[in-house]
Amino acid sequence: MNDIEKQLEFLVRTEELKDVFRRTYIPAGRKENDAEHSWSLCLYALVLSEYAEEGTDLLKALKMALIHDMVEIYAGDTFLYDKEGNESKAEREKDAADRIFGILGRQGLALKAIWEEFEENKSKEARFINTMDRFQPVILNFLSGGKTWKEHGVHRDMVLEAGKDKVLKASEPIRDIYLRLIEESVRRGYLLP
Amino acid sequence: MNDIEKQLEFLVRTEELKDVFRRTYIPAGRKENDAEHSWSLCLYALVLSEYAEEGTDLLKALKMALIHDMVEIYAGDTFLYDKEGNESKAEREKDAADRIFGILGRQGLALKAIWEEFEENKSKEARFINTMDRFQPVILNFLSGGKTWKEHGVHRDMVLEAGKDKVLKASEPIRDIYLRLIEESVRRGYLLP
Repeated sequence: MNDIEKQLEFLVRTEELKDVFRRTYIPAGRKENDAEHSWSLCLYALVLSEYAEEGTDLLKALKMALIHDMVEIYAGDTFLYDKEGNESKAEREKDAADRIFGILGRQGLALKAIWEEFEENKSKEARFINTMDRFQPVILNFLSGGKTWKEHGVHRDMVLEAGKDKVLKASEPIRDIYLRLIEESVRRGYLLP
Repeated sequence: MNDIEKQLEFLVRTEELKDVFRRTYIPAGRKENDAEHSWSLCLYALVLSEYAEEGTDLLKALKMALIHDMVEIYAGDTFLYDKEGNESKAEREKDAADRIFGILGRQGLALKAIWEEFEENKSKEARFINTMDRFQPVILNFLSGGKTWKEHGVHRDMVLEAGKDKVLKASEPIRDIYLRLIEESVRRGYLLP
């Protein structure tokens, strides 16, 4: 197979992310899939880029947002508050990364490195996209009246714990909106206190 | 409203693209929505960037792919082969661009300019993303056994005409795959001769 055939094989495989559903509901009333979620994350990163740390490389951040859930083609979506699922998550996703990015050969190694950087959450770009990845579902949960939170009996503390290293360390405007939405969600009964 | 509130209003509004459906079917068997399609276009641009013209700015191209269908929140999706719809398309979409990007104030002007650049199809980035925007649906149509083409009685010449300025002028590997898929689709009865 020449390069473009491998690239098309990869692109065709990525269609499957349109059929991996998350727990979060979109305003249209159904669950969000990984492809749409990744698009939203890119838009969040683009529109909110002024709140990223100085020197954040927006191109790298967008690439990261585009592919950050790619491993879920094989590993599935693991719910943030699923304790058991999260224990096996790292290993399942590492294998999945080898498989999906492996299709692309050398080009895939660069994408896999960006995915690993996202998972490690140590670079500016990774911190920014991880912040967005925790921030966007809270917006959607708020818009749905806490539908996912109610379905899974989620408490305020669980949301704050999940956002501890990822949103609560972000820049003030993002952190403030995040905390305000959580408090307002508790007040309205969307989220357990 | 301060900036971040306007930005969030814009981002929340963009959720609606997850509920604007195109004519194209994805491998899961349902129609593709604009949000997923935009994500796919970004991935195509990222993975196939080596086939863009030299000097193409990938960051600008990704921004363009992210927002290229944003106007459809208000203007809806106009099917490529809908003659009447395409006559009113430009005006409807211009109004929609003012509305959607207008939410963002000054920041929105920059995004609107990128959308206009996409529509004009004159810059390297616009040519690249327009190529991808005609190329990706042909891949999906091929994968679905020509489901959309059959539903709308589409002929080979109509596809070639639609791709004339956008794919047939692209770099050879892209053009070759495109033409091969069209010929094979006719041969298999996915597309009318």
